[in-house]
Amino acid sequence: MEANLLFSGGKDSSLSAFILKKLGYGVKLITITFGYSENWKLAKETSEILGYDHNVIKMDEKILTEGSRIILEEGYPLRGIKYIHREVIEELAKDYKVICDGSRRDDRTPRLEFSEIRSLEDKYGVEYISPLQGIGYRTLRYLTNKLFIIETYNSSEKKTADYETEARIFLGDKGKNIFPVHEQTRVLGWRGDAEWQEISHLVKN
Amino acid sequence: MEANLLFSGGKDSSLSAFILKKLGYGVKLITITFGYSENWKLAKETSEILGYDHNVIKMDEKILTEGSRIILEEGYPLRGIKYIHREVIEELAKDYKVICDGSRRDDRTPRLEFSEIRSLEDKYGVEYISPLQGIGYRTLRYLTNKLFIIETYNSSEKKTADYETEARIFLGDKGKNIFPVHEQTRVLGWRGDAEWQEISHLVKN
Repeated sequence: MEANLLFSGGKDSSLSAFILKKLGYGVKLITITFGYSENWKLAKETSEILGYDHNVIKMDEKILTEGSRIILEEGYPLRGIKYIHREVIEELAKDYKVICDGSRRDDRTPRLEFSEIRSLEDKYGVEYISPLQGIGYRTLRYLTNKLFIIETYNSSEKKTADYETEARIFLGDKGKNIFPVHEQTRVLGWRGDAEWQEISHLVKN
Repeated sequence: MEANLLFSGGKDSSLSAFILKKLGYGVKLITITFGYSENWKLAKETSEILGYDHNVIKMDEKILTEGSRIILEEGYPLRGIKYIHREVIEELAKDYKVICDGSRRDDRTPRLEFSEIRSLEDKYGVEYISPLQGIGYRTLRYLTNKLFIIETYNSSEKKTADYETEARIFLGDKGKNIFPVHEQTRVLGWRGDAEWQEISHLVKN
């Protein structure tokens, strides 16, 4: 069975890919772009290093436009990012049977509600899997530090292939001060002793 | 790191054990008893077949008494079973660092709320993991049928090492008609072709 996982190149989606593979799925990573950034290249690079198949899917920029409009209206990204996530998942549900994301128990966004998931599953006959939904931040930190070499930076540095990066770019100056700075991560590779020595100068976390 | 997983011998907790092992944890299975049933023996048998360490922990029967009182008062098991689950987890949090259960996204009970989990983690400095929290019933069925030989039966047959079985026994005639009959499962072994042939006559699902 093929599991299609939304992939940003960060530690959450990388751990999700690891778990799905261990469950026996053929893992296909998907990075979404609306054409406003080439950050999907970072996700592609990470997925190649980790050894997974990777696809970039260009979606209708109307989704980004409407999500950004909501963000501006609210003065806060939560609801707009969630709108984008839900629309993206609904598009994927038309083409794929098993759709996965790296959302965690502690995440506020982007994450579907239980009722939205059930409705999506029933409407399109798909399965929706979030392997990290029962895992808290301490457990996530322990597992990802054990498995991966991770680079940590501020979300304002725009290094992650996520919805927020493109919404920031789309909104430009209008979006200033709307997006709280938070920590982002990028997985640079599997953690092995040899590799670790070699690139430890890159690693902040 | 050691992961201590509540284990009934059913397919949910067996899949949880599988995932925790794959994540690199040393998996220790725990079956709770209040001394009203010896069904923990079924869980012990399953854990031996699957190859995990297993402990039986006898807890204060006051927890069962109060849980059963709530069930009787409500005329429905949900809140009382949840009470028992929460008390059990709190007891375990005093002794173990990583506590896990097999609760699923679709489960109504027994399952802690997000706020209860966070409060428990912070109060006792523990990690709480529910590996199936982001998995729906279709996915569960697919994965467990792929991995395990499973026996399916009605909950009234009392073959599972869970809280409900002991609450039923404790309440006796007073509990009649309170517990809706639902499907229970027991894992009989890993699914391998040879083994499968041998014991397929036992398997209803």
